[in-house]
Amino acid sequence: MQYHDLADQARQASRVVAQASMDCKNRALEQIGVALDSRRDEVLAANQNDLKIAADSGLEAALLDRLELNTARVDSMIEGVTQIISLPDPIGEISHLTKRPSGIEVGLMRQPLGIIGVIYESRPNVTVDAAILCLKAGNACVLRGGSEAFHSNQAIARCITQGILGAGLPSAVVQVAPTADREFVGAMIGGKRPLCDVIIPRGGKSLIARISEDARVPVIKHLDGNCHVYVDADADLEKALLILENAKTHRYGVCNAAESFLIHESVAASLLPRLADLLLVHDVEIRGCVETCRHLSGLTTATEDDWVTEYLAPVVAIKVVSSLDDAIQHINHYGSHHTDAIVSENYSAVRKFMRGVDSSSVIANASTRFADGFEYGLGAEIGISTDRIHVRGPVGLEGLTNQKWIVFGDGQVRT
Amino acid sequence: MQYHDLADQARQASRVVAQASMDCKNRALEQIGVALDSRRDEVLAANQNDLKIAADSGLEAALLDRLELNTARVDSMIEGVTQIISLPDPIGEISHLTKRPSGIEVGLMRQPLGIIGVIYESRPNVTVDAAILCLKAGNACVLRGGSEAFHSNQAIARCITQGILGAGLPSAVVQVAPTADREFVGAMIGGKRPLCDVIIPRGGKSLIARISEDARVPVIKHLDGNCHVYVDADADLEKALLILENAKTHRYGVCNAAESFLIHESVAASLLPRLADLLLVHDVEIRGCVETCRHLSGLTTATEDDWVTEYLAPVVAIKVVSSLDDAIQHINHYGSHHTDAIVSENYSAVRKFMRGVDSSSVIANASTRFADGFEYGLGAEIGISTDRIHVRGPVGLEGLTNQKWIVFGDGQVRT
Repeated sequence: MQYHDLADQARQASRVVAQASMDCKNRALEQIGVALDSRRDEVLAANQNDLKIAADSGLEAALLDRLELNTARVDSMIEGVTQIISLPDPIGEISHLTKRPSGIEVGLMRQPLGIIGVIYESRPNVTVDAAILCLKAGNACVLRGGSEAFHSNQAIARCITQGILGAGLPSAVVQVAPTADREFVGAMIGGKRPLCDVIIPRGGKSLIARISEDARVPVIKHLDGNCHVYVDADADLEKALLILENAKTHRYGVCNAAESFLIHESVAASLLPRLADLLLVHDVEIRGCVETCRHLSGLTTATEDDWVTEYLAPVVAIKVVSSLDDAIQHINHYGSHHTDAIVSENYSAVRKFMRGVDSSSVIANASTRFADGFEYGLGAEIGISTDRIHVRGPVGLEGLTNQKWIVFGDGQVRT
Repeated sequence: MQYHDLADQARQASRVVAQASMDCKNRALEQIGVALDSRRDEVLAANQNDLKIAADSGLEAALLDRLELNTARVDSMIEGVTQIISLPDPIGEISHLTKRPSGIEVGLMRQPLGIIGVIYESRPNVTVDAAILCLKAGNACVLRGGSEAFHSNQAIARCITQGILGAGLPSAVVQVAPTADREFVGAMIGGKRPLCDVIIPRGGKSLIARISEDARVPVIKHLDGNCHVYVDADADLEKALLILENAKTHRYGVCNAAESFLIHESVAASLLPRLADLLLVHDVEIRGCVETCRHLSGLTTATEDDWVTEYLAPVVAIKVVSSLDDAIQHINHYGSHHTDAIVSENYSAVRKFMRGVDSSSVIANASTRFADGFEYGLGAEIGISTDRIHVRGPVGLEGLTNQKWIVFGDGQVRT
């Protein structure tokens, strides 16, 4: 009930920012950067307050680390703002304008989605990242971070508001949840009149699953990053070893890390021992299929569970497959439609894999770790989508927009 | 429970048809056309059966007309198949392939959505239309028409299956609901494991609203077609009269017919009397704002309800507005994001309207009736979307696909 005012303000603001010029939006972004810089003591003090409360309540060290801001992290938020300013404005772009037999000209124009809700954990930097991406794409947004970061987010919100007002835009273009109350999330995603047009949940799988289950508006999300690297019969094994090592061990806790390796049977004997040695250096535990265990002694045998698990840890499941088709089928069946790679020098095998694997990123002869908005040239990302509609893979500015049809006529009517 | 088999078959079939060549898909389409032709007696007999049952149970005449098939309507279904064959295959199209600083090449590849569920009323021609569009876009589909058309749909399903098998594709590429049971709709859209990846409901507003409310998978839909024509201060009034007449009176029961006219106050005095005369010829009832009623005597005064109503009838609401901004605000507030048009010779006014109106089709100087897949050059449409994500406006083959990221490397890893 009490959120109807917020909804009206957000709608009103979304219409204003949708029409704002690139100049105006960039001015707002610049002012946000200035405010973050000049008010950094206020932001850091609020963050200290959050950290103290969180430490007292026994929050675990990894989460405290995510919650913490310091001078370097504020600098990096400001750097993020600079980066978004440099990106082209996607709004108003017209494409596919063609003349029809009736005489009308028909094309598409890119426009903002409307009001984007972002729900995330206690990472205050996300507040800035989400706000500036939504703003540049001409959207209003409602941001709800984890309650442990409440004071940090309120301080950051004041900087954002200062920047937005400084550019002459209504402050409701970015609304940071005014309460740590869980009821607010309900108002964002559901009820008779949800606050938001689209929801982007970020964070752990259970958070995202719960939001998706309850939301009455479209959700852009990914749940799992169960990524595979398949080494083909015609792989260059030196490239394969580099890619397998990088995909698994470069960072364990990220969604584009590989969790399963599929090895063609014709290269298993030559590759597996070298691969095992490499993984041993990194202390990575191998869970192997029966065939893998024949090549490597002392392994834990993989179960069905291993083929679907996103370990996010120094563990990898390895399966020997008898064909490219088997590999594609395994990935489409057990995978999470996130990112999967083939290593092969065979033209036809690569072509078949690229088309046959139903994932948001399909990679030939490079590490799965490249599945990332910056690496893909989006400039920034608000998340990675494994959905089937709207946008797949890293979501940048364009993923926060849609296209409407535009028609130019000279008085035509239908007969 | 009993639908798990169907789900497995559909998933399997979706993977096969996703990889099928254009040739193979076109062969299936051709064979469907042949089967509809050679088995037309069987289809018409099944339809007679449905018609008899429906007439006995007192179905109203308009619905009986939609349910009825005859030789001409079967011909038109076959004509539809020919049309889809002639369209280019959207699947596998690669775009935006660019080289990144890391050395990888990154681009997008178009691919099918997966399994599309179409839920519609008792119009047997939709069974063919939906099947052939989904098939051409490389999707499997599950089709559930109104129960009054059950026997017609089963007979059409046999023709479709014959065509699909004739091209060597699995019959489960197109599954027509094997039961008129309502429970089947529940299995398509919800439960622990919905049969479909995406749902397209077609039909009346209440059907679409109910499906959208209950669906646990994404829905592509439109609810209302509350379309506007705005006549600007700088309109060519002759064009305006033609467009207003066409948008309102060309067909009343269609979603792209205009329901409200917005008239700039500076042209109200000259335009409204002529417009009223024109509408009188068509027996269209006018509900006017206070200002409109000052210009035209004897009108019903419009209420708030009139601004949001999709009459689908010879009724129109007319409002005099004092500026372009007022018109845009009225449309964004009361409209349904379907199709809205401006009539103006003023360059800046048209530009502002095109960008400012948040509708799936925004039209300058032509009738709203052009918002249509054929008129836009899509070749065919499965519906019109007023959603904010994925696709807006007429949904053709491309709307039944998505784009995945593809990456070509030479052994790159992330550092």
